[in-house]
Amino acid sequence: MAVYTEVTDDALCAFLLDYEIGSAVAFRGIAEGVENSNFSLRTTGGDFILTLYEKRVDPVELPWFLGLMEHLARSGLSCPLPVRGRDGAALRHLAGRYAAVTTFLPGVWPRRVRPQHCGPVGAALAALHQVGSDYAPTRPNALGPSGWASLLATCGAGADDVQPGLGAMLQDALDRILDDWPVGLPTGHIHADLFPDNVFFLDGRLSGLIDFYFAATDILAYDVAVCLNAWCFEPDFAFNVTKSRALLAAYTAARPLSAPELAALPVLCQGAAIRFALTRLFDWVNTQPGALVTRKDPMEYVRRLRFHMTAQSEAAYGI
Amino acid sequence: MAVYTEVTDDALCAFLLDYEIGSAVAFRGIAEGVENSNFSLRTTGGDFILTLYEKRVDPVELPWFLGLMEHLARSGLSCPLPVRGRDGAALRHLAGRYAAVTTFLPGVWPRRVRPQHCGPVGAALAALHQVGSDYAPTRPNALGPSGWASLLATCGAGADDVQPGLGAMLQDALDRILDDWPVGLPTGHIHADLFPDNVFFLDGRLSGLIDFYFAATDILAYDVAVCLNAWCFEPDFAFNVTKSRALLAAYTAARPLSAPELAALPVLCQGAAIRFALTRLFDWVNTQPGALVTRKDPMEYVRRLRFHMTAQSEAAYGI
Repeated sequence: MAVYTEVTDDALCAFLLDYEIGSAVAFRGIAEGVENSNFSLRTTGGDFILTLYEKRVDPVELPWFLGLMEHLARSGLSCPLPVRGRDGAALRHLAGRYAAVTTFLPGVWPRRVRPQHCGPVGAALAALHQVGSDYAPTRPNALGPSGWASLLATCGAGADDVQPGLGAMLQDALDRILDDWPVGLPTGHIHADLFPDNVFFLDGRLSGLIDFYFAATDILAYDVAVCLNAWCFEPDFAFNVTKSRALLAAYTAARPLSAPELAALPVLCQGAAIRFALTRLFDWVNTQPGALVTRKDPMEYVRRLRFHMTAQSEAAYGI
Repeated sequence: MAVYTEVTDDALCAFLLDYEIGSAVAFRGIAEGVENSNFSLRTTGGDFILTLYEKRVDPVELPWFLGLMEHLARSGLSCPLPVRGRDGAALRHLAGRYAAVTTFLPGVWPRRVRPQHCGPVGAALAALHQVGSDYAPTRPNALGPSGWASLLATCGAGADDVQPGLGAMLQDALDRILDDWPVGLPTGHIHADLFPDNVFFLDGRLSGLIDFYFAATDILAYDVAVCLNAWCFEPDFAFNVTKSRALLAAYTAARPLSAPELAALPVLCQGAAIRFALTRLFDWVNTQPGALVTRKDPMEYVRRLRFHMTAQSEAAYGI
């Protein structure tokens, strides 16, 4: 579900006058995505995505996200290109929200991940890290390690409602992760949320990356760890080392991981797992009955976390 | 929210092999609609809508709906045309559901109804009634007057949870409506759900009608009454006679209403209002907390019902 705000046809018509992309031919809400309202917009000028920014996205940060996407797209990475209005501005207003139009990317996201998907994902992530290095503005990662303790604290006793003892287990794991968190690893702009629904494939080839609204400036190898969590577990939570080997081989072919980065993979993966466990737990505890958003089970990431806590070295990931 | 069932890329790929429409280029869930799962599907052959049939739609009835749509589209009404597979069948299986692919209709549904929309809606409804007359199979209207008493009964005391006294008010109104329900009026195939989100406009002209899954064989003027409820009330529930006059003038220009049909308009409008009040009430009472579907307020139709109960004759509708 991802239409929180409706746009009247009059408002859409007036909004499009500020662009040079013609008038609306079709306009439908997109079901995917939980953070913002997204619409498929076809105009006489082509196909676009219209995004209305809702909760969680701080308007002050929108220029950073749009600038990053423009930089990446212009650097040859296949990702949505923000479309500027006649006045040159990409960030606009519509229906009481900040809004942006981006180009439409062809492709279908893989509902079932196969090993063949994982190499292209690793290669695309490395390309993102490389071309992103020329984008000068930075953005602290609000959902990085410095935010995890407070996220867990705000869930309070709610963790134990999900599973008795979960609060203490997460607190213990988090303490160890933060103690072991690596310093001095290479940083840059990371996607930070490169899950299968944000990666499009077409005819067996990766056709583009979308949804950069969790992007931030952080440890590059942490982004690899997010992808290992997102792409390399089976539905029964078994870790698939064939997938991780393919992902890491393609990533390192383009951007080799240093010895300290490799050595940090287990704790980076633990951090990535606890990050998604904690935001899911937060949503679980704070979602009102009757809300539009489907609550995702935090335990799926607790189970991933347990796997990563058993990893003795990068060898656990097939590298 | 309208994606209840996910389709894996492998399953979609295999599914499309049974058609002559090429392979998938883009595939996204559509947010609109609450009964079925709908996807925007772009293939190398064009743009389509993929529908997976969920609850409420009886699979036995799907051939009737698809046959009606095909008949209407081939008769020149702008509506989705079911696409037949290589074996000639339009109704197929995908992801454990019955599924159909239909053509894509350009246009945008009016989020805010203006009087200029209402004439084209009346004309399109008359065209639907006229070209539908050649489609021989019939379908009883399960949500017609014969179903309303049991619908109210299943809501039980839940009505009074919405508003004290609502159950008795609805029972009293329903008794009077059923007593006064007209007999002998012309029947045919009706859309029965022609709300603004089922009517597309493009450049100020009506470009098509969608969502025929409540269509049935019933009193034609009842379909007019549904539209008067759907299109002619303002957000504050004031009846806008300018809109109803435009709708009725355009309808009757193509298909004149007889004196008995005109005389029955108030009770037909009461029936249409109580039909939507009752299904909304049913959903209100039966929706579990945390469900994906937004509950719609039944009182919006109780307020319409109250207006129609004050109507002395068709003059109340500007005709």
